[in-house]
Amino acid sequence: MTDLHQGATLWFTGLPSAGKTTLAHALGKRLTEAGYDRVEVLDGDVAREHLTKGLGFTREDRDENVRRIGWVAEILSRNGVVVLCSVISPYRAVRDELRARHESEGRRGRFIEIYVATPVEVCAERDVKGLYARKTSGDLATPLTGIDDPYEPPLAAEITVPTHQQTIDESVEQLWQALRP
Amino acid sequence: MTDLHQGATLWFTGLPSAGKTTLAHALGKRLTEAGYDRVEVLDGDVAREHLTKGLGFTREDRDENVRRIGWVAEILSRNGVVVLCSVISPYRAVRDELRARHESEGRRGRFIEIYVATPVEVCAERDVKGLYARKTSGDLATPLTGIDDPYEPPLAAEITVPTHQQTIDESVEQLWQALRP
Repeated sequence: MTDLHQGATLWFTGLPSAGKTTLAHALGKRLTEAGYDRVEVLDGDVAREHLTKGLGFTREDRDENVRRIGWVAEILSRNGVVVLCSVISPYRAVRDELRARHESEGRRGRFIEIYVATPVEVCAERDVKGLYARKTSGDLATPLTGIDDPYEPPLAAEITVPTHQQTIDESVEQLWQALRP
Repeated sequence: MTDLHQGATLWFTGLPSAGKTTLAHALGKRLTEAGYDRVEVLDGDVAREHLTKGLGFTREDRDENVRRIGWVAEILSRNGVVVLCSVISPYRAVRDELRARHESEGRRGRFIEIYVATPVEVCAERDVKGLYARKTSGDLATPLTGIDDPYEPPLAAEITVPTHQQTIDESVEQLWQALRP
């Protein structure tokens, strides 16, 4: 696959509590330990503080959120950084748009889509942020992806990670094996 | 001064039409020619398309605009990129906030403030985007920095460039001499 030393965007997409952020940080650590000295995790929730405060959860706002993170990832990756983005990014069209933008500079393979394919039942069970519980109890006013808001899975992700069928370490190992040159 | 090869944010502040973007691009080119392979110009106007669409020109919105660009610059510069930011950034407090954030990771000198100190009369004469003329004719509804909106010059910029007293080449040479290790 792509030589990560040239910079790349690893785009983790999936439902809330699928394990995107956990895997992004774990893989980032592994990359750093392996000697990659330019590694950044861009977390969708953190970005909402710094880049997209004020945006809501309509399709339009979600897409704008994804575009902004994608724009930053593009600049970083073309400067040799391995950027691990953990963002629900529920809509296929905008993910494909990011891929096209990344590759428009003639650098195929610089956008790597990683589908964290945890089924919604398992995500709801994990419920790291308590969002599924709040949705069930009627306490969450905003729409929740996978429950009452769409999630469009990738049709041709470079890597699909079944986190419900393996441990975190096994998932990281899977990613590592798939990504290393 | 700072070793730019370690990454740094060069923050060009000044009035509209002061010459910030021109100098940022010219210095960026000079850096690239000198062998720096990670150089990015972040232009305030471009950022308004990608990062800050929807923000206006109140103090609050201007500060948020500056903070977002600063956040991106911080990530880039800590990954070894020389980031040249050309942003009016009229308020001193938020510029100082960016400096503090950049230096909070124990890397003094990573935020370099460049005051493009062109007087308002000269800026209005150049009027690259026609903003001063529109303001005079009453055609510009939003406040214009330096005319009916404040600009707070830096009190201790690392470099002050008097573009009204020298050519563009001389200004770039001044910056180059001040910045090279």
